[in-house]
Amino acid sequence: MMPAPFSTLSDFRALLQALPRPDAEAEAAARARNGQLTKPPGALGRLEDLAIWYAGWRGVARPSLLRPQVIVFAGNHGVTARGVSAFPAEVTVQMVANFRAGGAAVNQLAKAFGASMSVHELELERPTADFTTAPAMSEAELLAALAVGWQAVDVEADLLVVGEMGIGNTTPAAAMACALFGGTAGEWTGRGTGVDDAGLALKTQVVAEGLARHPSRDPLEVLRCLGGREIAAMAGAIARAHAERIPVILDGFICTAAAAVLALSASGALDHCVAGHASAEGAHRALLSKLGKAPLLDLGLRLGEGSGAALAIGVLKGAIACHSGMATFAEAGVSDG
Amino acid sequence: MMPAPFSTLSDFRALLQALPRPDAEAEAAARARNGQLTKPPGALGRLEDLAIWYAGWRGVARPSLLRPQVIVFAGNHGVTARGVSAFPAEVTVQMVANFRAGGAAVNQLAKAFGASMSVHELELERPTADFTTAPAMSEAELLAALAVGWQAVDVEADLLVVGEMGIGNTTPAAAMACALFGGTAGEWTGRGTGVDDAGLALKTQVVAEGLARHPSRDPLEVLRCLGGREIAAMAGAIARAHAERIPVILDGFICTAAAAVLALSASGALDHCVAGHASAEGAHRALLSKLGKAPLLDLGLRLGEGSGAALAIGVLKGAIACHSGMATFAEAGVSDG
Repeated sequence: MMPAPFSTLSDFRALLQALPRPDAEAEAAARARNGQLTKPPGALGRLEDLAIWYAGWRGVARPSLLRPQVIVFAGNHGVTARGVSAFPAEVTVQMVANFRAGGAAVNQLAKAFGASMSVHELELERPTADFTTAPAMSEAELLAALAVGWQAVDVEADLLVVGEMGIGNTTPAAAMACALFGGTAGEWTGRGTGVDDAGLALKTQVVAEGLARHPSRDPLEVLRCLGGREIAAMAGAIARAHAERIPVILDGFICTAAAAVLALSASGALDHCVAGHASAEGAHRALLSKLGKAPLLDLGLRLGEGSGAALAIGVLKGAIACHSGMATFAEAGVSDG
Repeated sequence: MMPAPFSTLSDFRALLQALPRPDAEAEAAARARNGQLTKPPGALGRLEDLAIWYAGWRGVARPSLLRPQVIVFAGNHGVTARGVSAFPAEVTVQMVANFRAGGAAVNQLAKAFGASMSVHELELERPTADFTTAPAMSEAELLAALAVGWQAVDVEADLLVVGEMGIGNTTPAAAMACALFGGTAGEWTGRGTGVDDAGLALKTQVVAEGLARHPSRDPLEVLRCLGGREIAAMAGAIARAHAERIPVILDGFICTAAAAVLALSASGALDHCVAGHASAEGAHRALLSKLGKAPLLDLGLRLGEGSGAALAIGVLKGAIACHSGMATFAEAGVSDG
């Protein structure tokens, strides 16, 4: 495997400034084709926009979606020592085994929509530091996690979904969202896998402590000080997908917090991404709104693992199937109004 | 083929009163299984409810979805003579040819989600009567159309989607919705495939004329006087699916208007149905609300053909794949909090 093309955070920042744009010619050709298909103009709603967007990124006017890739990154969090999760930290490694055995929700969804799936564990035996006392990661640790994500992407894939497993990781995601977009800890902190009222109050307090402890609002510094390894790996993978012009479906709150680091680092860094769903984790909707992304699905999921995004692969497949498979008015001999 | 088990409207009414209920034991077993799967309780949101609902109707605690069926019914409408559509009436027969050739949107979606697809044309050369001057159908015509729908259902299917093609048919659907649920013609009349402001005003006027001309509010009389053959066929197919315990995904405004006839004819007649999507045709959302159905998708589609429901097959497939394929906490050795 080629080494990741960055060995310092400056390298990574420079790389984000140089990401490619979609193919304007393919996008225009897809838009023209869409106007000739046997349906009233606009009658397929967002499916039409999705297909045109996908065509632009793939550089093909009549694209197919044949090789979706789902990657799950797993990490552990020192901040769980503060009691912020309803589940014990050992569940992270137990769930990694479940992913490998094919027993988790995202396995079923990947299979249902024809996606390959891989799992990358990031030093589970060595949690990040508790961010209320120290930066979650050193610069070297952050770079290593970004590189894992970067290298996990299959350059032959034509769609990427990244998911995560990491007990306690709605806490770093809330802290990151608050650091990146402002507001109060309370506005960005939710119940995660299901903490009670007392748990929510404690979690909000922990997020506020982390924000006070780490004043930098530089996006990559926010990721380093308040994030986690699996969150950094997701950011690395989403950036790599952009570099390879592989469209991405974003998952829930934690995935979107990872993506937000890129969005605030370079203009247009998430133009290759659509929001797969709105999570039931309260602040996800606010985060998507800050990023200008409208979710494709809104079904009350709050599982992570990439599950919401994997479910949305079906919607994107449907959009592309219509766009590339339908007859035009001329081909079908149908009067176009 | 067996003849339909009704030869009069009284027969059909009696049949609707005797529809089966879901299997309570299978539903309870599915609910218990759902509680043991490797995820926090409720974390798959509506997917969990969908899987349990489907299990109950199929009578299996751990069901599969292998044989979805999509049926498109086509009919022509005398009321198009009043200029209520942006497309000429000959498009109905042209689109039937497009369905048969595999070129329409619903063909691509059925294929993408592994559904069989068939098309039934209902006397396209003999449109229904213009409902502003006479009942759209005689009783014999209504019974014939209901029977076409009833007999079109494959009893080996494990999911049904019904769609329609019929230039002008948002006009009868609006008239039916208004007759069934009250309110004004303006509240239920929308732009269909895309009439302009003058077209919308005319269409609203035509709906109001039909409502005044046909005062009966008996659901089957509403269907006969204000509906159309493809709309009646959809109602027949949805009823047959209920009789066979085949779950149904409802499509847009016209499909839902057909379903509403059943809902107001017999309590629980649509318990085997979920709403696939909210159409951009304005009154669809109101109609779903009257029926107490929350749409699975909301992507701005307004094409008909069963397209929104066919897209939602993917969501249901994902729900069932998770439910039936995931490991339990015990199987996976994961701590359950």
